[in-house]
Amino acid sequence: MNTLDRETIADHFKSFQAQIYERIEGFEDNKSFIKDGWEKQNLGSGLSIVVDDGQVFNKAGINFSQIAGDSLPDSSLGILNESEKLPYFATGVSVVFHPNNPNIPTAHLNVRYFCTTKDGEIHNHWFGGGFDLTPYILFEEDCYDWHKSAKNACDQTDPDFYKTFKKNCDEYFYIPHRNEHRGVGGIFYEKLEIPLDQGIQFSKDVCAAFIETYTKILEKRKDLNFTQRDVDFQKFRRGRYVEFNLIHDRGTLFGLQTSGRIESILMSLPKDVNWRYKFDDNLEEKEKNLYEHITKPKDWLNE
Amino acid sequence: MNTLDRETIADHFKSFQAQIYERIEGFEDNKSFIKDGWEKQNLGSGLSIVVDDGQVFNKAGINFSQIAGDSLPDSSLGILNESEKLPYFATGVSVVFHPNNPNIPTAHLNVRYFCTTKDGEIHNHWFGGGFDLTPYILFEEDCYDWHKSAKNACDQTDPDFYKTFKKNCDEYFYIPHRNEHRGVGGIFYEKLEIPLDQGIQFSKDVCAAFIETYTKILEKRKDLNFTQRDVDFQKFRRGRYVEFNLIHDRGTLFGLQTSGRIESILMSLPKDVNWRYKFDDNLEEKEKNLYEHITKPKDWLNE
Repeated sequence: MNTLDRETIADHFKSFQAQIYERIEGFEDNKSFIKDGWEKQNLGSGLSIVVDDGQVFNKAGINFSQIAGDSLPDSSLGILNESEKLPYFATGVSVVFHPNNPNIPTAHLNVRYFCTTKDGEIHNHWFGGGFDLTPYILFEEDCYDWHKSAKNACDQTDPDFYKTFKKNCDEYFYIPHRNEHRGVGGIFYEKLEIPLDQGIQFSKDVCAAFIETYTKILEKRKDLNFTQRDVDFQKFRRGRYVEFNLIHDRGTLFGLQTSGRIESILMSLPKDVNWRYKFDDNLEEKEKNLYEHITKPKDWLNE
Repeated sequence: MNTLDRETIADHFKSFQAQIYERIEGFEDNKSFIKDGWEKQNLGSGLSIVVDDGQVFNKAGINFSQIAGDSLPDSSLGILNESEKLPYFATGVSVVFHPNNPNIPTAHLNVRYFCTTKDGEIHNHWFGGGFDLTPYILFEEDCYDWHKSAKNACDQTDPDFYKTFKKNCDEYFYIPHRNEHRGVGGIFYEKLEIPLDQGIQFSKDVCAAFIETYTKILEKRKDLNFTQRDVDFQKFRRGRYVEFNLIHDRGTLFGLQTSGRIESILMSLPKDVNWRYKFDDNLEEKEKNLYEHITKPKDWLNE
């Protein structure tokens, strides 16, 4: 595989980042966006677009990166055999939006391309990614729209994808020590071995579905009122998000194990987070409603 | 080993908890303390004394527990061989103080007793523990006092302990992905195989040294003024504390792997925490001073 091929693939992912940024830009104070290009020796390069303490976003990150290494780290072993720990190239986009208004859910997307090489030739390549939603105040119609749009994106490539990837997502974004899911899910796929063109198109469709639905939710919820209690609950729930990312997330672990760029990896964490003692022993009705939806995954589209 | 022996040992640790609580009680609004006895089937029992959003403490926990299980979990493998994964009994006290005033450091203590059994008899027993200090605004004299008192506690049992345990502590409370230590250290010991009486006395001395020095620091610093920037920096630094505990701490991992009582395990996390993007790219003088002390461990007592 020559460098040109890698650059061409990376360029696709760069354009996904640009499209997501373009769609979200108008929702936030323009001064809030930090654009931070980076390069790290023996690793790769990237562009992080970050909001830290913005008007609409408590924290947001739209990350592009392309990296290469001599051997895939142990965190990949869940999906790879020991014999597949070969030199690799990876490029992708990671997005997280942590809004200030608790009526707006946190949203996360990742799309990535991986390939391993053997004797200078591509040994294998695959795609991974997905998106998931973490509400604080749950609106059923938002969850429905989220899943509907995930299904539409999937169906364009394969009508069987949504069902499998939705189940993957419920299983992956699970916090065992809390016996709850991170949110209401979406889709998650790993080691998807499909032709290059198809994989890039699918990644593009996933990004488009994600940003279209999320901006629709943003429009609907951004001016809704909320109470101090709502914010306290949101900060408390953000703690669970951090617990998942630091303890369980394979992507975070992969980043730490590849000595990745720490600022970009941990950009996924919200700015304001609380850990409270037994805060969820006394929940209000709408909070209980959230718990009902995150303790047992729901078939949102009645498939 | 009969039940009475375990209870007698556990009673010692209960009394350490009581002594620590007694010394700290006067510093906080009395209404802030939550006393929460618990029992968990197939695990054990404990008493958690917690401050969540207090006057002086953003979060504080003084935990006693006694637990037993059929097999020590994998997180113990750092200090044990596979053949030592026997039925076990453990009892101990864990303490963490996260003050509101950034002039007061966060302090952590743990003292514990472990034994494994084979065919109903004690196969092995050992002690573990230590204490460490995490300043936000660093006062050298507080760090000196902290280490001096650690050395005094150690010297009562063995004049070689401090040097070894200080080094252990620097090594253990290290955050590799940040290339910094959690704070200015103290002492840390693991699998200390000494006679029962001596181990209990040493645990007692460690608790006494910890609470005496910490209350001395509290007295000195509790009325000092601070700025909003100091608080922002403190919340940001607390993020590192969380990162260490969730990613690296063997005690937290042990708790999660033994299906421990999650509220007591994660009580170690501060209430108000921030993750900022590259916040430490522009540090003020006193903040830089802190970083100098946590990036390279210092020989505080000029040993």
